[in-house]
Amino acid sequence: MFTVSPIATVHSRYTNTAEIPKGLDARHDEEGVIELRPEFEEGLVDIEGFSHLYVIWIFDRSRGSMLTAHPPADDRPHGVFATRSPQRPNPIGLTVVELLGRDGPRLRVRGLDMLDGTPVVDIKPYLSSVPSEQLRRGWLDEVERRGRTAG
Amino acid sequence: MFTVSPIATVHSRYTNTAEIPKGLDARHDEEGVIELRPEFEEGLVDIEGFSHLYVIWIFDRSRGSMLTAHPPADDRPHGVFATRSPQRPNPIGLTVVELLGRDGPRLRVRGLDMLDGTPVVDIKPYLSSVPSEQLRRGWLDEVERRGRTAG
Repeated sequence: MFTVSPIATVHSRYTNTAEIPKGLDARHDEEGVIELRPEFEEGLVDIEGFSHLYVIWIFDRSRGSMLTAHPPADDRPHGVFATRSPQRPNPIGLTVVELLGRDGPRLRVRGLDMLDGTPVVDIKPYLSSVPSEQLRRGWLDEVERRGRTAG
Repeated sequence: MFTVSPIATVHSRYTNTAEIPKGLDARHDEEGVIELRPEFEEGLVDIEGFSHLYVIWIFDRSRGSMLTAHPPADDRPHGVFATRSPQRPNPIGLTVVELLGRDGPRLRVRGLDMLDGTPVVDIKPYLSSVPSEQLRRGWLDEVERRGRTAG
């Protein structure tokens, strides 16, 4: 067992998970702020140079854990590790955000998909991408081929 | 405070951090295995369809936390959240690996940069990349421009 403590808090317009776009065609261009706790602000030095960041956070309002998930994009179940389901063995979330700017401990970002008040446990620079021609997306690609619309 | 528990263990050839390539020109094509605990194997259903995975893990042998990091690629310090330093407020690691295949609870992967025995706390599908023309990499780009070699 390991313990993690929040280093920051998400400020977003989302107060209910029903408001967060989900599914295949979900666009995550929601803007908001990630506010570092004052004691961690020094850890942000030079972060402005990065266009995108990884944000690692806690699904603090998710309850329970299931090994089989029913993602909104599909009517078929999948193993939880092949999905982004919040109900996972460790309720850890991962989001790539675009960094718009920094005001002291406050990072202005685009691409939030977390509820307001979500605790953040780490921030890392996004350094490189997998070339799109090398990327396969399993059941998501299949759903697209079947022509379903996102749930 | 939140607690997380290992769902899997990394099997790699690395037994000492000195063996792990670091710095700007580091190539991470090391192959190895991520072995799920038996009770979590069901969560892997359909994961074979994804070419790449996010692996979230714990720097279990890292000691201490600093807000200023001295990455091997540069002779200048940077805020820890602008680096991948292991000595961070929450010792959480994030690695993108290529999934080569699955044998029951064992995922054969390429791109490991963790020590043998590293505890894994989550696995997620890699769904999309930031287009390279939109990516800025801050001090790393600067170091490259200065023409330094990776440390």
